[in-house]
Amino acid sequence: MMRWMMAALLAIAAPAFAQAPLEVREIGSLHVGGRIATLSGLPQRQMTFSAGAPPVMLDPNGEFQVEQMYAQYVKLANPRARFPLLLWHGGGLTGVTWETTPDGRPGWQMFFLRAGHDVYVSDAMERGRSGWARFPEILPGEPVFRPLGEGWSLFRLGEPAGWNRDPARRVAHAESRFPIAAWDQFMKQGVPRWATTDRQIQAAYDAYVQAVCPCVVVVHSQGGNFGFNAVLHAPDKIRALIAVEPSGAPDEAADAARVKGVPHLVVWGDYVAEHPFWSRARQNIERWQARIREAGGTAETLDLPAEGVRGNSHMLMMDTNSDEIATRVQGWMAAKGLMR
Amino acid sequence: MMRWMMAALLAIAAPAFAQAPLEVREIGSLHVGGRIATLSGLPQRQMTFSAGAPPVMLDPNGEFQVEQMYAQYVKLANPRARFPLLLWHGGGLTGVTWETTPDGRPGWQMFFLRAGHDVYVSDAMERGRSGWARFPEILPGEPVFRPLGEGWSLFRLGEPAGWNRDPARRVAHAESRFPIAAWDQFMKQGVPRWATTDRQIQAAYDAYVQAVCPCVVVVHSQGGNFGFNAVLHAPDKIRALIAVEPSGAPDEAADAARVKGVPHLVVWGDYVAEHPFWSRARQNIERWQARIREAGGTAETLDLPAEGVRGNSHMLMMDTNSDEIATRVQGWMAAKGLMR
Repeated sequence: MMRWMMAALLAIAAPAFAQAPLEVREIGSLHVGGRIATLSGLPQRQMTFSAGAPPVMLDPNGEFQVEQMYAQYVKLANPRARFPLLLWHGGGLTGVTWETTPDGRPGWQMFFLRAGHDVYVSDAMERGRSGWARFPEILPGEPVFRPLGEGWSLFRLGEPAGWNRDPARRVAHAESRFPIAAWDQFMKQGVPRWATTDRQIQAAYDAYVQAVCPCVVVVHSQGGNFGFNAVLHAPDKIRALIAVEPSGAPDEAADAARVKGVPHLVVWGDYVAEHPFWSRARQNIERWQARIREAGGTAETLDLPAEGVRGNSHMLMMDTNSDEIATRVQGWMAAKGLMR
Repeated sequence: MMRWMMAALLAIAAPAFAQAPLEVREIGSLHVGGRIATLSGLPQRQMTFSAGAPPVMLDPNGEFQVEQMYAQYVKLANPRARFPLLLWHGGGLTGVTWETTPDGRPGWQMFFLRAGHDVYVSDAMERGRSGWARFPEILPGEPVFRPLGEGWSLFRLGEPAGWNRDPARRVAHAESRFPIAAWDQFMKQGVPRWATTDRQIQAAYDAYVQAVCPCVVVVHSQGGNFGFNAVLHAPDKIRALIAVEPSGAPDEAADAARVKGVPHLVVWGDYVAEHPFWSRARQNIERWQARIREAGGTAETLDLPAEGVRGNSHMLMMDTNSDEIATRVQGWMAAKGLMR
């Protein structure tokens, strides 16, 4: 058994502990990053504000706060972690990813609070409480809306043919760990996303890191490449990066030597090899990890199926064994000296 | 001095109490309400996903979860309030209204947690973490984006002529309590809003009340009419309503007798009489309050300037005396028997 698994089991030793209340010093939030954008020369818009009322002419020009991001923190009275833990969600979703699971169980925010971390949960630029701006004038292009069934195969719950509008007729992988009865509830967490705003999202994340770190960062899916880049941009601020099912990695131009002092862990669920998009993404990530190691850094992998943990979807923080996986991540952090 | 002011002062008696950590049982969240909408017959859209890449054809048709709302809760280990406290934000904003103030002080969420309430903070349908849907196909019309300076006079920080893009040249009311140096930071909290979705917003709030109440509800601004209506729709579920600077009230057709068992409190800041929109809104609200009293109910007013508290803006939960106002609201709740 890997050494850090032993550390995990020792770290979560006392069952009674899990039931004690959290001692919280403060719950709060901030917006960070962004800029003031000016629109001018746009024609007046005719808008109807209430059914049956005459239309009103609205001036769309002016100055607007745009491209900021939101983060909420829960600070413990006596944190046992050395640094705050930042959780970054993935595409088409928000920080809600880390909160209560769609079937009502405490999520990773609660897990890591109980494990003694100050936890920060954020919404990327353009998502959730970060707000969004007029398009295409400020945000380029237009947003994409995820249909109800797209994630069924994309998140590796089942084959595309297993999707059905009728929940009773949906077919998931035999060993799937996702709480599939809660799929429609999960889909309520979706928010529109732009495909053309990576630069702005990264800029806001970089401002966030400057504002609240040193820290440890956990990223998911589309958040992956933002996380890898954030470490490249601020290797002095991010003490470790845990990338859960990341969808992208830095390109050939990135200098892996910059991050050799920042341990990386990548976590994969099941059914990756069978999925064209995810197997390609994984190869890209593993190339980046290899370059980190060649440069003298630490880049490890928690391959859940290889560890005998079968059936995890892309949304492994929502899967029914989400606490077990979080325990392993906690053990890795402890083994890397990130706890007091 | 009003009786419930005495109760407030007694309730917040021990200074040391304010510094003890919160004992929190659970932090979590849920999405509630909404429906599955089907789009069909829309043409394919040509979209560019990355700069320089060939455009991709995207099918905008399909089924989508829409019109849901998000709420986050903090549940105490030992709440002293009898019911959870729900905080509903106003127009163009989200639940962040109740969180850390723009100048970095704990907000009303923290105040009421320390006062012993389980506190729920929500984002209305279409805002923040509730997500939003394709328009005009699902959400009618188009959204409005608040310019940087619109709130300066609308929220009664100062006269319209007092606004300036340059913070050093802005002029506020002499006694203004808003942390005016943090105005641009506050504007980062803004999110787009539709003017045509009151029905959907109310439906989601009504579903929310059914899901989590009995409860006490605090509403702000545009949230006001949603709150008044929520009580009309579920007078058995909402034990009291506190409307902070509400912008609207139920119309002549509403049956005030339905809510005679639900005590109402309306809170006003300063400069209302001088502001055409707010003085008219206040008259409408006071008409509704009078009807509640005529029907045998309780509808009281906390008029801050009349109490000698001058200078409050529309955003009085962010003003520098926000804790003092929250203390008075707490005293009113205690006097109405809402604490154990």
